[in-house]
This record gives sequence, C-alpha cells and structure tokens, in this order.
Amino acid sequence: MKLEKLVGERFKERPADCTIDSHALMIRGGYIKQVTAGIFSSFPIMKRITHKIENIVREEMDAIDGQEVVFPVVMPASLWQESGRYESVGKELMRFTDRNDTPLVLGMTHEEAAVHMVREYGNSYTKYPFMIYQIQTKLRDEARPRAGLIRVREFTMKDGYSYHTSQEDLDMYYEVCHKAYERIYARLGLPQVISVESDSGMMGGKVSHEFMFLTPVGEDTIITCRDCDYRANLEAAVALIKNKAPNTLEPLQKVHTPNTKTIEDVCAYLKLPIENSCKAVIYQKTNGEYVVLFIRGDCDANETKIANHIGEEIHVATITQASGLVAGFLGPIDINNAQILFDNSLKNSGNLCCGANEIDYHYTGFNIERDFGEVEYHDFSKATEGGICPSCSQPSLAISRGIEVGNIFQLGEKYTRSMEMKYIDENGKANYPVMGCYGFGVGRTAASVCEAYHDDYGPIWPMAIAPWQVHLCCVKSQDEETKIYAEKLYEQLKAQGIEVIYDDRPVSPGVMFSDADLLGVPIRIIASPRNMKEGSSEIVTRDKSIKDMVKHEDVVPYIQRLIGELMAI
Amino acid sequence: MKLEKLVGERFKERPADCTIDSHALMIRGGYIKQVTAGIFSSFPIMKRITHKIENIVREEMDAIDGQEVVFPVVMPASLWQESGRYESVGKELMRFTDRNDTPLVLGMTHEEAAVHMVREYGNSYTKYPFMIYQIQTKLRDEARPRAGLIRVREFTMKDGYSYHTSQEDLDMYYEVCHKAYERIYARLGLPQVISVESDSGMMGGKVSHEFMFLTPVGEDTIITCRDCDYRANLEAAVALIKNKAPNTLEPLQKVHTPNTKTIEDVCAYLKLPIENSCKAVIYQKTNGEYVVLFIRGDCDANETKIANHIGEEIHVATITQASGLVAGFLGPIDINNAQILFDNSLKNSGNLCCGANEIDYHYTGFNIERDFGEVEYHDFSKATEGGICPSCSQPSLAISRGIEVGNIFQLGEKYTRSMEMKYIDENGKANYPVMGCYGFGVGRTAASVCEAYHDDYGPIWPMAIAPWQVHLCCVKSQDEETKIYAEKLYEQLKAQGIEVIYDDRPVSPGVMFSDADLLGVPIRIIASPRNMKEGSSEIVTRDKSIKDMVKHEDVVPYIQRLIGELMAI
Repeated sequence: MKLEKLVGERFKERPADCTIDSHALMIRGGYIKQVTAGIFSSFPIMKRITHKIENIVREEMDAIDGQEVVFPVVMPASLWQESGRYESVGKELMRFTDRNDTPLVLGMTHEEAAVHMVREYGNSYTKYPFMIYQIQTKLRDEARPRAGLIRVREFTMKDGYSYHTSQEDLDMYYEVCHKAYERIYARLGLPQVISVESDSGMMGGKVSHEFMFLTPVGEDTIITCRDCDYRANLEAAVALIKNKAPNTLEPLQKVHTPNTKTIEDVCAYLKLPIENSCKAVIYQKTNGEYVVLFIRGDCDANETKIANHIGEEIHVATITQASGLVAGFLGPIDINNAQILFDNSLKNSGNLCCGANEIDYHYTGFNIERDFGEVEYHDFSKATEGGICPSCSQPSLAISRGIEVGNIFQLGEKYTRSMEMKYIDENGKANYPVMGCYGFGVGRTAASVCEAYHDDYGPIWPMAIAPWQVHLCCVKSQDEETKIYAEKLYEQLKAQGIEVIYDDRPVSPGVMFSDADLLGVPIRIIASPRNMKEGSSEIVTRDKSIKDMVKHEDVVPYIQRLIGELMAI
Repeated sequence: MKLEKLVGERFKERPADCTIDSHALMIRGGYIKQVTAGIFSSFPIMKRITHKIENIVREEMDAIDGQEVVFPVVMPASLWQESGRYESVGKELMRFTDRNDTPLVLGMTHEEAAVHMVREYGNSYTKYPFMIYQIQTKLRDEARPRAGLIRVREFTMKDGYSYHTSQEDLDMYYEVCHKAYERIYARLGLPQVISVESDSGMMGGKVSHEFMFLTPVGEDTIITCRDCDYRANLEAAVALIKNKAPNTLEPLQKVHTPNTKTIEDVCAYLKLPIENSCKAVIYQKTNGEYVVLFIRGDCDANETKIANHIGEEIHVATITQASGLVAGFLGPIDINNAQILFDNSLKNSGNLCCGANEIDYHYTGFNIERDFGEVEYHDFSKATEGGICPSCSQPSLAISRGIEVGNIFQLGEKYTRSMEMKYIDENGKANYPVMGCYGFGVGRTAASVCEAYHDDYGPIWPMAIAPWQVHLCCVKSQDEETKIYAEKLYEQLKAQGIEVIYDDRPVSPGVMFSDADLLGVPIRIIASPRNMKEGSSEIVTRDKSIKDMVKHEDVVPYIQRLIGELMAI
C-alpha cells in the first residue's frame, strides 16, 4: 500500500509517559493508542504485525493437533463458582451484572469455559487426548497497568487446553507443547526466549513454566544458573541456604537491646554476624489471622511460597495492640496468636539471636531444637544472586529480569474435579481427566520483539512478523523518470506477492527515511534521481547489515532471494 | 483431519428449546454450545466456518482500501459521554466499573473508539478519505436472546468506519461499500441477501441500509414492492395512505357511544366505514410526558417514526386519572396535557368520527381544519401489505420477514461534531469530516446460510465457507484393502491442498453418513469394499445434485475440478 494512505500518526518526540523503548516507539510510530489505562487501540501497522504472530501461533498449535475454538469474553459467574475461582480470584477478575442482575465476569483466562465446552464430549477414554485453543481478547483488571503493551488490562491471548487420561500422557504432550513454543519464538524472531520453572499461582496444578524474554525492563525476576540449565521465576526458584551446625551450644540468655529497630541493628549492637540471627516476618491472612515466618536474618521471605504452603492469600501485617504481638521483638519463644513457620535457612543453625517478645529485649544463644522444640523447615525464602543452584549445587545463581511472553501449566484434575467432568475408562470406571493449559501473549510478544530489535529511530522487525517485507522509497518523486520507475517496481513487486509499503510523498529524504525507520520494515529500496543515473536502486536493510546498489533488472530477483534468506533466520 | 478426533458432540434428537432449524442443527452437529443466555462457545467446526467468512470479509474490505485495526472491547464511559450515547443508549449497553470505580462500558459498536483513534491523524484534508475496520467481539445486553445465533448478547462483528471531507465523497464510498457487501454475500453463497432502506436508530445519520436475508424465521419485518425495486425495513418504510376529500362537510355532532371500547366498536355502532374514523394512539416519553398520535382508524402507528420525529424514546402510555386524559375517548377537540401529532393518513380526510374527551361520547362530522385548525401531517404509520409503493405508486407493497446480516449507515457529522474531530481544508478552514459506518454480523451470516441451505439431516454448506471441502468416508474400515486405499487417497488429497475430513471409524454406514450430513461438507467420497470391487469410489454432493462412480485413478482430478466449479458458484 501507499504510505500516504496509512492510518496512524508518526512523530519524533519521545512521549514523556513512556518508560520503555517499545512503548515509546509504538506510540511514536502510530502502532497503538491508549484509550484508557492499560487499554489500547491498534492501528493498521500493529494489526499487520499481530496478525502474523497469530498465524504463526495458529500453525504451530494446529501442527500439534490443536483445534481452534472460541470461548466467550463474557461468562456467567455461576461457571466460575463451579471451579471456586469466583471467590478465590481477586479484583483482577472484572465482575458485573447484566440487565437482569445476573452476575457475569470478563474472561481473564478460560479453564472454566474449556471444561464447560467438552464436559459431555469427553465422556469416553476413546476421545482422548485432545487439545482445543482460542485466540481471543482477554480482560484483567491490573492494579497498575504500565509500560505500553507489557502490563495491560485488555490483551489478545492464545490459550490452549489439553485433556488426558493419565499423567504420563499429559507429561508427554506438555513436552510437545513446550517444543512448539520454542518453535513459535524462534519463527517470530525471538529464539532467545527461555522457559523457566514458575509458580502455578491461581491456575492450580504443580508443574508449570513461563517463557521469558530476558530484558532489564522486564516485570519478572528470574533466577538462572551460570553453570547449568537451571532457571526459574523468583517466585518458584528453590532457595538453598546452608548452615554449619555450631560445635558447642551457647546458653540462652535474654539481653537488653534498646533502640534496635531492625535485625541489622540488633546484630550490630550484639556484635553478631547477621547469619547468626533469626528474623521474624509477619503476614496476615484475608481473615486477619497472623502468620509469622522465622527466617535467617540475611534472607528475604518469598510471599508466594508462604501463600502456596498455607493455601491462602496473605498480605503484609498490621500489628495491633490487641494482637498481643510485640512488633520489632518477635521471636519463637512464647509467641502466641499466630501460625508459626520456619524457613530452611534456619536448619542446622545454632547460637542465634532472636526477639524475646518483649519490648527492647532479645535472646542470644537461641538453639531452635533445644529452646523451642522440633520444627518442620520449608523453603520460604528468595533465591539470591550467587546462591546455590538446586540443580548443580554450585554457588552460581544469577538474577535477571524478563517479560513473560507465554506460560504452560499442568493443571492436573483441579478443574475437571471441581467441575465434575468425567470419562469412562477401558474398564467402565469413571475418572477425572487431567488437563494442561498453554498461554501465549500476542501483544507482549510484539513488544518484546521491539525491545529486542530497535535503535533510537525505530523498531527493526524480523521478516517473519514485519508489517511489510519491503519499504520502497521514491526520493524526489517530482522527478518523472524516478517516479515512473518506482511505480513500475511497486507493481512488479506486488505482482510477485511481495508485501510492499510504497512512499512516493513529495517530502524530503530526511522525513522519508525517519518515517521508514519508525515502520521498521526489514528491506528498504531507494529509488532516486541519483540512483537512476546509475541504472540502479539502493537496497539497504533496516539493521544496516546490507547496503547494496543493484541494477534495475536485478532488483526483483535480489529482493525475492533476500526475503527468503531473512525469513529463514 | 480425522473425524474421530474432531472435538464436538453430535446427536440425533432436535433439542426442545430450538425454535429454528439453524439453531437446532448447530447444536445437533456440535457447532456451538450455549454458555449462558445469548452467549455461546464455538466448537472447531464452527470456528472453521467463521474463519472463512471473516477472510472473505477481510479481502473485500481490503479491496476497497479498508485498513484493519483493533478497537478495545472495554471502553471508558467518558468516551461514550463525549458522543452523548452513554446517556442516550439503553440497557443494551453493558455498564460496569473497574477496581478504582471508574465507569466502563462493553463495546456494542465502536463509533466513539473509531473517532478517538483518528482524531489527531485526520487533521488535514490530505489524509482523506480513509476507512478503518475491525473484526472483533461485541457485547449487547439483549432483553430476549433467541434463535441460536440470530439474537445473541456476544457476537463477532466486522465494523468499518469511513471518513470524508464532503457528503459527495461519502455518497460515492457508501455506494462502493454497498457493492462490496453484495460481493461478500455472493461469495459466501448468499446472493439472495437484499439491501433495504432502514431506520438509523441510535446510530444517527440519515441514509442507511440493512442487508437482509429473507426468511420466515427472521426477526425483522421488511416491505418490498412487487412491481419495482423498492424495499425498506418496516421501521423506515414510507406509508402512503390516500383519502378522497368529501364533497360536502357534515356538521360536527357529539353523539352518545356507550360500550364502545375500540375504534372498530365505535364505527360499527355508528355504522361508519373505519376509514372515516380518527383514532388516538397514546405514548409516553421517558420523562412521563404524553404524546398522542391521531391516525386513521384502519392504520397502525409506527413507534420508530414517532420517536425519530420527536427525537426521544417513547413507550406505550399508562393513563392515570391525574393526567386528565379520557382513555378510550380521546379526540383532538379540547385535548390537553399532551403533545399532539397527526398522521398523513388523515390528510384530505373529512366527516370523521373521533373521541370527544368525555366518557361514552364521540363526535361525528369531524373535519380537522374546520373543527380543530391547521395541522402538520407527517408519516407516522406502518406500511401495509397491498399498500401504495412510494417509488412506483402502485398498490404493490408486500410484507416479508428477514434476518439482518449487515448494515451500512451514513453517520454524517454526528460523531465528529460531538467529539470535536476536525480537519483543516484546502483553504485553511477547520471542518468536521463526515463518516460512514459498515457493520457485518459473522455469526448471523453463518446461521442465515444454514437456514438457506439445509435439509432435515443437516446443513448443506456452500463450498466457499464449508468447514472442509471433502468428506472422505471409509465404509467398513476393517476391510484392509479399502482402508489402505482410503488412507492413500486421504494423503493424496491433502497433498493437493484440499481440506479433507476423514472418517475411518469402525461404525455402521448409517452412523457415518448421518454424521456426514450434520457436518454438511459439500463433496463426499465413499470408499467401501463394494466400490473397491469396481475399482471406483462413489462421489456425491451433499445437496444430492451429483452422484457419480469415479475410477480410482480419476478421483483426485475429478475432485479438484468439482471444488473449482463449486467455488465459482
């Protein structure tokens, strides 16, 4: 098409409210426009990109026997009550009522709808396994939408759901789907996406992976190992903190520790290394009950692990006088009115300092088993930079940040059991099928590609998802000979099925090229009076790796070959 | 793909709650499943059909320079307040609030979002004309969802918006789009869709057309002329009712008319033809004010015309004692407390009977101009079977019913003016662009095609939107030779890019063929041991127009040719 007809604004100034480059470039290039916080319209150029991403996803899902379906955006609350999520999910789930006051929800994910669809179909083992997926608009009422398409409230997602008669079959298909995801990211030009072990959160199930594009502007914190393949979301990463049990146990002593507000203060005052302290971190459940975690002083609590362990949501506590808890001086001995947890970081510890549940007092020489009793230790702390890798046992953990562009979950029987979906097996016995689910964020992926490939002037789209394959610039279109040549070339390229955006506006080369930079089309052809004199066109790639003068008669075959090469990358 | 893997239930019994055939067949064939009133999930077979419909629509929109975009499903109320529709649209518009109590709406149409997108882009006349469209999920809280996909609350729609600098340019593009719609319906196998003049309703603007598939099960009433091309939705159809002015005016007389409840009763009692009566029809505005329409006794009031005339919504009135209105005896003389309207059907009338605004009394010999004064007559009545055509003046109007599968509107400046979208013209002057909008219902169209082409056993899909092109039945797949042949043919057809659904289940031919009937694939190939003996396959079309025995070596070219022929229809 002709650039002058392309609907969308382009401008030079970086908008002040854009914190990341992809957001800024997508606004500057006329890709997206915010309608309200976290909700965008997509201009034609963005739609062309997402259309290509969606088609790649569709092809790969079809290749692993996925069948495309559509679930509704609006669902009755009753469906989410069946699974229990109408109550358990927070404000992210948008709830409202229709004209008859029937409660409804807006789909942020579709496990319930997916079970509803096949609850009768999947009544016999002969139907299994099968996978259904959709590419559909989803709504999620994020508290703090930010960073353009990275954290939004309305987004397009591919979500797939597989059904199996055994865990083994799910394991097998999960792996097949994992590989399909790798192919998807590779095909759309983002092979650097890695999968990391993740927390299953509100989805249920045990095994899950997130596909992460590593970037400093990412929302998620990821733990990787420098020495092996281990990688996990911080929320799920195993923290291994080791102690050397002391040779001799010191006696328990209550000591006066005035003006010590933090565990660091206490350790400094008592001249103890912070590893020899037992810190209390306190939370509350939604019903107000307190949960106190004891953890080594130098470690940080991982809320997700705590919530998963107790099976309830928690938040940072407000300690009231009535609670009987002594803020700042909490310790295991004689603590009341709270659920007590011990982190693995205190295993094999000894001679610790800890709060005495009394204002301005701590204990020293605290030895858990001797002074408190036998306890169960669990992993409640955050993995750390330089921490021990749970896979190769080396102190090689590293912290990175990433954008979650996809996720896959083994849901097990969570939804089939709660929603009473059963099949009859070979022996006539009724069983619950096990499920997997497979999410892919279209907009986030587009933004991640833009983060991965751009310069100050615009995105550098990979050929597979570029809005057009070729950007034809007719410089000085008032020159008749140039114009005639460019028009003919435009028609020739189109006739070969090549996607061309054609700029024949009577603007300066500067304006023309800066617009081309914002569109980020991989191959640029420049026709100009100067090039005409040589009987050539200039062909340059957006990433500047190629810059060639090509004779007129060779331009079309040259472009065809180059597109093929760039597609194959 | 293999039929045994196709997700979706099929069954024989017509569901009791299905009032129309397309709904029943789509449920019986595993096309759709209701999630809640007027909200459905689509199984893979349905998605295949809608995907093809959407692609045809996309191609035709692109061909008339449409550019595909995406508007959000969720919009801020503030956007709809700009246009005034947040207040003026009724409960069909789903309203709710987010976690911060910001009011939001679910998109039932996207004029506001369309203006928002291009308000800055369209700042100069050089950008015009342009058209943007989307294919997106829409929500509309219908009071009474019914008839499967015909009247739903959630649906997929293509909606396009064009922008112009003059009414002439809009007129021209409107016509171009009208022709594109005709091509769309023709391509997807529904050339019988007609366009009718329609009422613009809540969309604003003057000229508008609905595309109607005529069928007795339709929701809309359509007026067509038997002698010319005139056709209009009943809501918009001009009603021409003529009177012969009387030679002599009779005197006005108040007469006692006890026990006459209806205008028919009065005329019978007074021995007057009903054409000589002046009937009152009474409505109320939303603020409670009364509106009384006087109309000839044999005519019916058209609420839409009245609402359009007074520019407000109306409903049937509740007449209270306090109103001072005498129900059953309302007449023009000395009536108070109401806005009075006169229908065209009373023009040139004379010597009428009418209510005397007094219980049990009417007037006879009522002559409007003499006894009431000069009045303005407007068209407020419904066109009727056998009525006079406003185009050719013959008494040839006919009433049909239809399903609205598309609509196009000239919006004029309604949205650009209310939302302050302006462009600078050639002379540096700021103007409001004029808009057109172009809707197309994907699901309704699929249902209409099914209504048009089906038998008792299932749909008969046209080739262009059929879920597959070929249905390959391997009868008695336990027969090794047959199975080997069918498998090979399946692979050969797929290798030619032909879309094949392959049924090799070990079921009876009866089950196999009744399932095939429900899928409605246009071409069926039957491989069976009996056919093997002849070295042939049986090829039949779903509409039974072709039934051939074809030698094995000829099957693939035969099928290729037949698909080509059926595509061209």
